[in-house]
Amino acid sequence: MKIKANTNFTGVDDYLFSHINNKVNEYLKDHKDAKIIRLGIGDVTKPLPKIVVDAMIKAANEMGVENTFRGYPPEHGYTFLKEAIRDYYKNFKVDLDLDTIFVSDGAKSDLGNILDILGDNKAYIPNPVYPVYLESNEMSGRTIEYVYGNEENHFVPLPSDSMSTGIIYLCSPNNPTGSVYSYEGLTKWVEFARKTGSLIIFDAAYEAFIVGDYPHSIYEIEGAKECAIEICSFSKQAGFTGVRCGYSIVPKELDANGYSLYKLWKRRQATKFNGVSYITQRAAEAALSEEGIKACQENIKYYRRNALLIKEVLDKKNIWHTGGDNSPYIWLKCPNNMKSWDFFDYLLDKANIVGTPGEGFGTSGTYFFRLTAFGSYENTIEACKRLEELL
Amino acid sequence: MKIKANTNFTGVDDYLFSHINNKVNEYLKDHKDAKIIRLGIGDVTKPLPKIVVDAMIKAANEMGVENTFRGYPPEHGYTFLKEAIRDYYKNFKVDLDLDTIFVSDGAKSDLGNILDILGDNKAYIPNPVYPVYLESNEMSGRTIEYVYGNEENHFVPLPSDSMSTGIIYLCSPNNPTGSVYSYEGLTKWVEFARKTGSLIIFDAAYEAFIVGDYPHSIYEIEGAKECAIEICSFSKQAGFTGVRCGYSIVPKELDANGYSLYKLWKRRQATKFNGVSYITQRAAEAALSEEGIKACQENIKYYRRNALLIKEVLDKKNIWHTGGDNSPYIWLKCPNNMKSWDFFDYLLDKANIVGTPGEGFGTSGTYFFRLTAFGSYENTIEACKRLEELL
Repeated sequence: MKIKANTNFTGVDDYLFSHINNKVNEYLKDHKDAKIIRLGIGDVTKPLPKIVVDAMIKAANEMGVENTFRGYPPEHGYTFLKEAIRDYYKNFKVDLDLDTIFVSDGAKSDLGNILDILGDNKAYIPNPVYPVYLESNEMSGRTIEYVYGNEENHFVPLPSDSMSTGIIYLCSPNNPTGSVYSYEGLTKWVEFARKTGSLIIFDAAYEAFIVGDYPHSIYEIEGAKECAIEICSFSKQAGFTGVRCGYSIVPKELDANGYSLYKLWKRRQATKFNGVSYITQRAAEAALSEEGIKACQENIKYYRRNALLIKEVLDKKNIWHTGGDNSPYIWLKCPNNMKSWDFFDYLLDKANIVGTPGEGFGTSGTYFFRLTAFGSYENTIEACKRLEELL
Repeated sequence: MKIKANTNFTGVDDYLFSHINNKVNEYLKDHKDAKIIRLGIGDVTKPLPKIVVDAMIKAANEMGVENTFRGYPPEHGYTFLKEAIRDYYKNFKVDLDLDTIFVSDGAKSDLGNILDILGDNKAYIPNPVYPVYLESNEMSGRTIEYVYGNEENHFVPLPSDSMSTGIIYLCSPNNPTGSVYSYEGLTKWVEFARKTGSLIIFDAAYEAFIVGDYPHSIYEIEGAKECAIEICSFSKQAGFTGVRCGYSIVPKELDANGYSLYKLWKRRQATKFNGVSYITQRAAEAALSEEGIKACQENIKYYRRNALLIKEVLDKKNIWHTGGDNSPYIWLKCPNNMKSWDFFDYLLDKANIVGTPGEGFGTSGTYFFRLTAFGSYENTIEACKRLEELL
């Protein structure tokens, strides 16, 4: 065909986790009996709480009966779910305008699609970080600058004088490093964004793992509604990776050179999205009920116990690491100055453990490695045994 | 903020159905007792077949149990559903490569997002047509040319010599006109696309309504895999407007100036999408089973009976119309040379019937109006009575 493709895709690497999957499958071809333990992809393993399953069954039954059947959902989410999200934010002393909550099929979709409403701005992307920020900016041909995390700043980098106006991505608790911004740290970012007229895109997908005194939402910081969009997900909070539900908060205060980002996102979603399944939204509502939050937190506690087990081994072996306390991720420095893909192969081959090479999240991860606490308790214990022997 | 917004949104109208909703709500404020019959938005009203509800309940229960719980779905869809879709296409004698079937949360999302993988091409958009094609092209700042439907071509326009290389949107059975392309008509489009190196985006959302000898899929036409993407949906076929599931077919043969559109879409979805709910995919699989298709076709028969009732009144009143035979939509010429928004107000006020003004689908609809067969049988009978009295 003579029609033009989007040539910006040329520079985009393979999707990290597809690449890892292919590598593991290759390995398995030659090692059919290997008892692989997967601590790689950040996917949950605990089943959904009963209250969530019950809500889905009730909703599914309603869809089978004439007078309770529901057709097109509101593009921006049912009010019952938006109210539940608004109430959840009251836990953090954040007041949300219902209109500004946009329910979606997940944070990944929103993180990719949000760029539709923005012009050609520079993007400031943490390095290392969740690859979707980088890739979606590459796909749209935007200029990218990195904000580097490292051992010195404990992978919670702050704004520097060399930065100017742009789209600033923040992820806290961070994927992959598990590090969390303090109130002071986030305040510096909000002040910087307001001074430079920048927009912060705050990814709060892991907020439910926070146990310490850290902000769960960027809107806990004064002035953030004038400079930040928050994107969140039920995936990690409620184990919804297979159910697909997330939301974005786009405050009415966000004025981009005379354009209301709230209005643009509302308009974007009306044309390019058609809302989330009624059944899914009822499930999300149940996950945010008092009983639901309690049940979800039980699962998170289970994962936290795994994280602490892994940290214990690393401590014993004097391996530098961060995360795990307020996050399902443990970010460790590869032993013996190994590079992360080498360590990936080493760990896969010698211990049959699949982790995620730090370099997959950016150059700053070249000598680092991510392990997740999402395995089963039994597998995590076994993995720790193997790590203890190997390292 | 100083950051730049996407200024292309400026020219985009309000979303049609939001605008209509607002108008109806305004009317209801002053006419609290009005017994409104909604034959406007193309939303289904029949409940989901039992086999579909049962599949959702089974899947929801699996999600509540440790060893049947499923996390992230494959970004491009579960194999069980792709196989069901492939088998469904065998009914039309179309062979699909499983890899080329991409499951999504609906045709609307895909129709909007597909532009992500394309460069700056001219878009040929039917007029009138479903507003999403126009709006998503406006939002991305593309040049738009219309392909006009009218009484003379019975709203199935064919390519003309003035057209050149571009993205060609086709919708058959058409929304809003209900008209359907013949094998000959579609063959002309495929030949034109191949001659000019154009890409066809074929929206087959209403194919399940076809009873006559018309193509259900563009791939029934020889050579279409080299020039066409097909986008389809369970919304109208299986009543999934509230469940959210669709799919796109992006053949490996599609080469855009050296770029494989298959590879680009696969890559796009890996970064900006995270797959469809397991529960939803099981529901879609059930809808495509033998029993599921039979149950879904029962609902479609119900809607068809409504369509025939509406057509009967229009025939009696000598009002020009098309559609209704292979489509849930009836497209009529407004009586007395009225403009469509005037007829909308007239119908709302005098008969308390909500329809959709043709102009909402493009200038070619200025003197036309869309009624849908998606109401209940009882409401459709009542609406027909009112129409017969009024017109």
